[in-house]
Amino acid sequence: MPVDSNAAIEITAFRWVPDFAQGLVRDLRARWALEEAGLSYKVRLLDQQRPPEYLLEQPFDQVPCFNDGKVRIFETGAIVQYIGEQSEVLLPRDQQGKFRAIQWTYAALNSVEPALINLLLIDVFFTGQEWATLRRPGAEDFVKQKLKRVSEWLGDKQWLEGDRFTIGDLVMTTTLRFLRHTNLVAETPGLGDYLRRAEARPAFQKALADQLATFTANQPQPEPEGAVA
Amino acid sequence: MPVDSNAAIEITAFRWVPDFAQGLVRDLRARWALEEAGLSYKVRLLDQQRPPEYLLEQPFDQVPCFNDGKVRIFETGAIVQYIGEQSEVLLPRDQQGKFRAIQWTYAALNSVEPALINLLLIDVFFTGQEWATLRRPGAEDFVKQKLKRVSEWLGDKQWLEGDRFTIGDLVMTTTLRFLRHTNLVAETPGLGDYLRRAEARPAFQKALADQLATFTANQPQPEPEGAVA
Repeated sequence: MPVDSNAAIEITAFRWVPDFAQGLVRDLRARWALEEAGLSYKVRLLDQQRPPEYLLEQPFDQVPCFNDGKVRIFETGAIVQYIGEQSEVLLPRDQQGKFRAIQWTYAALNSVEPALINLLLIDVFFTGQEWATLRRPGAEDFVKQKLKRVSEWLGDKQWLEGDRFTIGDLVMTTTLRFLRHTNLVAETPGLGDYLRRAEARPAFQKALADQLATFTANQPQPEPEGAVA
Repeated sequence: MPVDSNAAIEITAFRWVPDFAQGLVRDLRARWALEEAGLSYKVRLLDQQRPPEYLLEQPFDQVPCFNDGKVRIFETGAIVQYIGEQSEVLLPRDQQGKFRAIQWTYAALNSVEPALINLLLIDVFFTGQEWATLRRPGAEDFVKQKLKRVSEWLGDKQWLEGDRFTIGDLVMTTTLRFLRHTNLVAETPGLGDYLRRAEARPAFQKALADQLATFTANQPQPEPEGAVA
């Protein structure tokens, strides 16, 4: 679906972020789920400096928020689950299938993501700080252990629960992308292929292109020469 | 509900854990939700050294798993949500109320818990390591920022979404308990009272007592004198 300024569904996203965050910002998950579900949406863009009242919508000052006129929520896990309830492409209808998918959404966000974000922060935000240098080997080992767990579970399966892609795979693979500055996913048996399969989905490609197009369109202009003098 | 060896619902839990983890292990969330919902359950106890085949049930080698003969899942977020779908005490029936509660469950597990667990690990597992000593002030500041966000959202409300306790409060307050070795929750406006309100619920008290009773009953015996000689 094209992003559509008349759509009933609105998400929030950033107008622009630095290179290291482009393609990682979490509205990507919401965009991807909406594309898979065939739901059009509009985007409310926020500057890096959010207005104080945004905290009344999103207490942690993050993106995305979601609002379709009926339900107004934040947290990508909840958003993709809500979208999933409107599309069997993302969330099976039988209780066991549904809750296995939901379980993987939580697993990605609570059992996997914290270790990966920790390494990303060490490498991107805290690089050069003494504690970060000392901690990095242990933090990487912890990431490897998490990836091994996912890899062993996945085995020869196409997706986490077999032949069928779900919100669990959507959130797990966007979580694995937090390691794109390393070779750790590619070095873990099966995980590189799993991530490539997910990223090859047309809905993912569309979602990613739309996020990146916004950043390109809003790239800050360099100061004109002489402006500082 | 009493723990009942004939119940249809089974959860997994540890037979015994060291003191620092007693009252924090995550089966507490499942037990609490089951008590709130008035559902009886049985417990399958695991040693600290889990059998390798447990990974086929729980790929991250954690507790609890949940099985009611219809749905078999892991991850406490998914488990309390599934229990919530069976009890309006835990999860409102209207879509907005339901997804606001689910949103807070994800928020507790993804936007709050990682910062708190990071500080707990620094203080309990990595204490004395140079990186941990260097990192601790920054890690505590990050925790304080997260607590401030929750505190400001909460304001004068009794629960995160107003007058009604939900799975979001259940998961958020069990998350705040990971800081019980500090005064950080008590020092944040409103949060100490919020946690006390949650812990005063009879269902919480019953769940906690049942977890602790198992540990007391299975306390490892000291080696008899002379056994080493």
